[in-house]
Amino acid sequence: MRIAQVAPLYEAVPPRLYGGTERIVAHLTDALHDLGHDVTLFASADARTRSRIVAVRDQAIRLDPAPLKSDLAAHLSMMHEVRRRAHEFDVIHFHVDLLHFPFFEDIARRTVTTLHGRLDLKDLPEAYRRWEQYPLVSISDHQRKPLPLGNWISTIHHGVAEHLYRVPANPQGGYLAFLGRISPEKRPDRAIAIAKRAGMRLKIAAKVDAVDRDYFVKVVEPLLSDPLIEFVGEIGDAEKPEFLGNAAALLFPIDWPEPFGLVMIEAIACGTPVIAWRCGSVPEIVEDGVTGFIVASEEEAALAVTRAAALDRGAIRDAFDQRFTATVMASRYLDLYHRLDSAAAIDVPVAA
Amino acid sequence: MRIAQVAPLYEAVPPRLYGGTERIVAHLTDALHDLGHDVTLFASADARTRSRIVAVRDQAIRLDPAPLKSDLAAHLSMMHEVRRRAHEFDVIHFHVDLLHFPFFEDIARRTVTTLHGRLDLKDLPEAYRRWEQYPLVSISDHQRKPLPLGNWISTIHHGVAEHLYRVPANPQGGYLAFLGRISPEKRPDRAIAIAKRAGMRLKIAAKVDAVDRDYFVKVVEPLLSDPLIEFVGEIGDAEKPEFLGNAAALLFPIDWPEPFGLVMIEAIACGTPVIAWRCGSVPEIVEDGVTGFIVASEEEAALAVTRAAALDRGAIRDAFDQRFTATVMASRYLDLYHRLDSAAAIDVPVAA
Repeated sequence: MRIAQVAPLYEAVPPRLYGGTERIVAHLTDALHDLGHDVTLFASADARTRSRIVAVRDQAIRLDPAPLKSDLAAHLSMMHEVRRRAHEFDVIHFHVDLLHFPFFEDIARRTVTTLHGRLDLKDLPEAYRRWEQYPLVSISDHQRKPLPLGNWISTIHHGVAEHLYRVPANPQGGYLAFLGRISPEKRPDRAIAIAKRAGMRLKIAAKVDAVDRDYFVKVVEPLLSDPLIEFVGEIGDAEKPEFLGNAAALLFPIDWPEPFGLVMIEAIACGTPVIAWRCGSVPEIVEDGVTGFIVASEEEAALAVTRAAALDRGAIRDAFDQRFTATVMASRYLDLYHRLDSAAAIDVPVAA
Repeated sequence: MRIAQVAPLYEAVPPRLYGGTERIVAHLTDALHDLGHDVTLFASADARTRSRIVAVRDQAIRLDPAPLKSDLAAHLSMMHEVRRRAHEFDVIHFHVDLLHFPFFEDIARRTVTTLHGRLDLKDLPEAYRRWEQYPLVSISDHQRKPLPLGNWISTIHHGVAEHLYRVPANPQGGYLAFLGRISPEKRPDRAIAIAKRAGMRLKIAAKVDAVDRDYFVKVVEPLLSDPLIEFVGEIGDAEKPEFLGNAAALLFPIDWPEPFGLVMIEAIACGTPVIAWRCGSVPEIVEDGVTGFIVASEEEAALAVTRAAALDRGAIRDAFDQRFTATVMASRYLDLYHRLDSAAAIDVPVAA
């Protein structure tokens, strides 16, 4: 199939450091390519994938040192270019929320729109009602709840490249891991409380955005003096497998409707149990008692730390191989592309 | 003529407090209505004008207490509605930068796009090159310099409703005025230095945005202890005529390519001289020696404070009546609408 992938221009594909959407686009693009398809990626010029790349900006916006930029103009120009070349593709897959809606109304039936963010925003129901012709994919069933009337055709969980992660031969253990971004809704403070209650070390590998600086200084930093707690800062992809693979468990004590939570499947790919709050997508990702534990209090979480040691790391990785590899994700999208392609040819709606 | 005005949804039309674009849309809409035209305003429901209002959001975004909003979705929905009703209008006038570009390509020749912001952003030339069919209006000649190849059809200076401002019978004088927003590029620090050098009181009426809080605390606040300097906070429209009209002069010592600078013509409408930096639109607005003085150093500015006392406030207001009323602005736009309307009818390009 001739497939176009359209990535956001905020981060490189994949991102140099933190970043979710562009990372998934990279994994999906490579997996589709490896499955023998003709994939074209619209992205900034710093993209690194095995597909053909159409560079629509010289570099990703967020790390671009230019003092004055317009992310809206950059994305509109990209859409203009995608539309100019739309006839080259059997299906066009968008990862840019809804910015493409005005552009592809006449060929919406051979597009796929994966929504990557939370959807409980005031202005969304009206916009999705106006453009109901676009087939939508959610990244968890929970994510789509605020937009029940959306034109949902599937939930497809994220996947990551299988070779990037492995179960260490002798996991070192002895510490809990927190990985991602410091922010109130990610609850690093709760992770610290759990570690102290469980009496186990906690390593926090996380970036601190400018917008969260205040929260870090006021709430998190005062908690770092405890000898059990170690703040190691932001880490790159290369360091993640070791950081995650050697942990006794990943703590994911979130306090917001997480649409997916990529770090959970990265831990599972390393055979590391996930201890996660019952919130957002969590019950769809973590199999309680197999790949980790779903909890609702610090007490339950501390208990889960003890129980996690008994989980079989090989079985955790097996769950990953069955459900969360990039190949599994790409295969599910391919099914969808084929359904759309046939339906467009004979002009019938696509069943959910 | 049947005219549509499309306003941004960030502030009410007109804004409750600070805000430029939505204020101009309000003045223009009312002036077109008063000139006998059939005007429809697309805006949030808190708009207050004499025209017909199509409310596309329950309230303006910036003061909306809803915790999660999408300004992009809100504006896309508005564009969807404008397009649905496009056949009802002879001309559609956009004030939303370039968000409408994907929607009205087939009728671009009967649209007008007034650009309200600075244009020296990295991503703009590419986007304006891709949508060169849209006739563009700049609000100063200087504003368009970063986009020389844009499809410019006119520069139309802003205007404000003539009855809202008047020259006080006995201007109190004795103080300099700074009005607007505290931010580094507006240079309140320079205004303070000028006042001290001139030995005259300075009243600063300005809002402090969250993003400028740091600058205010570190740079401006330490300068406020001088007995000559008084910080009065943000003021509303009702207080402006008195604040501006009684000032010896308005200080506008900016340090950025100001596309227009509405406060300059508000001062001129009150008969108050403007002492402004040679920067951006300033030389197009201020007539040196008539409505104020254009300066390039604190020394020149302090000298201008003395010279300003000799300017004729009646003549300053006359300049306003000739150049900067809402009626003058509306008449210039009407000329443009008629040119576009005739050109669209006989299918020829519109001359600049």
